[in-house]
Amino acid sequence: MHVRDPLLITSPANPRVKALAGLRRRRTREQEGRTLVEGYEELGLALDAGVVPRALFYCPELMGQGARADGLVGRVGSLGTELVRLSRAAFEKAAYREGPDGFLAVVDTIERRCADLDLPSDPLVLVCQGVEKPGNLGAMLRTADAAGLDAVVAADPVTDWGNPNTVRASKGTVFSVPVASDSTEATLGWLRAHGIPLVAATPDTETEHTQVDYRGPSAVAVGTEKEGLTAEVLEAADHRVRIPMVGRANSLNVATSAAIILYEAVRQRSGRGG
Amino acid sequence: MHVRDPLLITSPANPRVKALAGLRRRRTREQEGRTLVEGYEELGLALDAGVVPRALFYCPELMGQGARADGLVGRVGSLGTELVRLSRAAFEKAAYREGPDGFLAVVDTIERRCADLDLPSDPLVLVCQGVEKPGNLGAMLRTADAAGLDAVVAADPVTDWGNPNTVRASKGTVFSVPVASDSTEATLGWLRAHGIPLVAATPDTETEHTQVDYRGPSAVAVGTEKEGLTAEVLEAADHRVRIPMVGRANSLNVATSAAIILYEAVRQRSGRGG
Repeated sequence: MHVRDPLLITSPANPRVKALAGLRRRRTREQEGRTLVEGYEELGLALDAGVVPRALFYCPELMGQGARADGLVGRVGSLGTELVRLSRAAFEKAAYREGPDGFLAVVDTIERRCADLDLPSDPLVLVCQGVEKPGNLGAMLRTADAAGLDAVVAADPVTDWGNPNTVRASKGTVFSVPVASDSTEATLGWLRAHGIPLVAATPDTETEHTQVDYRGPSAVAVGTEKEGLTAEVLEAADHRVRIPMVGRANSLNVATSAAIILYEAVRQRSGRGG
Repeated sequence: MHVRDPLLITSPANPRVKALAGLRRRRTREQEGRTLVEGYEELGLALDAGVVPRALFYCPELMGQGARADGLVGRVGSLGTELVRLSRAAFEKAAYREGPDGFLAVVDTIERRCADLDLPSDPLVLVCQGVEKPGNLGAMLRTADAAGLDAVVAADPVTDWGNPNTVRASKGTVFSVPVASDSTEATLGWLRAHGIPLVAATPDTETEHTQVDYRGPSAVAVGTEKEGLTAEVLEAADHRVRIPMVGRANSLNVATSAAIILYEAVRQRSGRGG
């Protein structure tokens, strides 16, 4: 490595290693305002989004060969971030994924409420209510990133934006997409205050998702796979839409449903297509 | 239980229990032409699709209370399927998921080639080339079920339709959607022979997925997340389309991409929307 190592930790029992493993717990993340970004690719995306890690824990033995990994350590070091080199045993204790690649950064968690979001005049927003699975939240963030959404709000989420599995499943887009979390009530109030019509996804309607006009300011709301959206959201919605389904299972998962509706909005807003 | 138990196995070392665990291996599945369907919900969907299991292994201690589980055992028994009751220890040895719910059925694998598929005059088909992750294959099947696809072809798949994780991720739709697997060459030949134009998803084109007409017979092809489609498919395609993406990551996963394109086709074919 071309980077000087101010600290080397070899013991998995070291308190700093234990503290890293502790960040897997939501309560610890919330108390400390910190979370973990693990992996070369995710860390690179976080840096691209302007994140300055508090500390980088790295393990050359796990990185494989080559200048690529060296370059990333150097890039983080140049930000003034503390660099800590770990032994393989210590790193594997701290890492949360199987087959870690030697990169584990501590970063500030995202603590944004709806009121903290800046919106353009014509926003397209996703509201996900009560999402439980970090994988689904991450997948929706990837879609939000691709579709160029102006905000993604987790309303009364069961999981948090700082969940390392959300960070991972989002491929780092949690740091580039404007995200917030808030109560459902505050989220609905914020949409009203900004004059953003709400389109609620639910099987209990005859209106298809393609029959609504998304060309102005629009918010799309999706609920949990089991329960869907709450009555509070359905009643507040300007439109209720369903995705047409002909199959025997109530098939689409929440992230797929969100992607289908959001890309219909993108299609309409681009003025293109059939 | 109201069903008589012709056989009770208590030992996890029983050869039939070991044989179940063996079906987690693709080679064993292919040699024996059998796979596993685990879980109350998945088994119900398989039965709804007309599957007659070869055997049902069940464990009342894991089922929880209630007539629902009894009813499913009875339903399978009424098909003439062999019923085998397992002890908790034996069932947990045979089950492939964590927290099993006491249902594990052995069914015939799906061994269909393109030539075995029946198509309507105006088919909508998904071709997934080289898919590696059972979770992605399963998610695409759920979308195919919802969108009413006429066929899903796995071309040169790395995973197989019989993978228990595919069955699980598909929520049983692998049994209701017409699926096949074949070589890429045979798949392309079959599309040509049926006069089905091929729309290939790739980032390397300026044509957006909404700019193609899917109202006639159409096949949509998606490749692996890392490599995309092979040159063989791209060159054979009548149209190459990309999903517009504005974000910093090459964000959409393959199942999400497939869903977005397929639902654009559904929109055009229904004659509705913007």
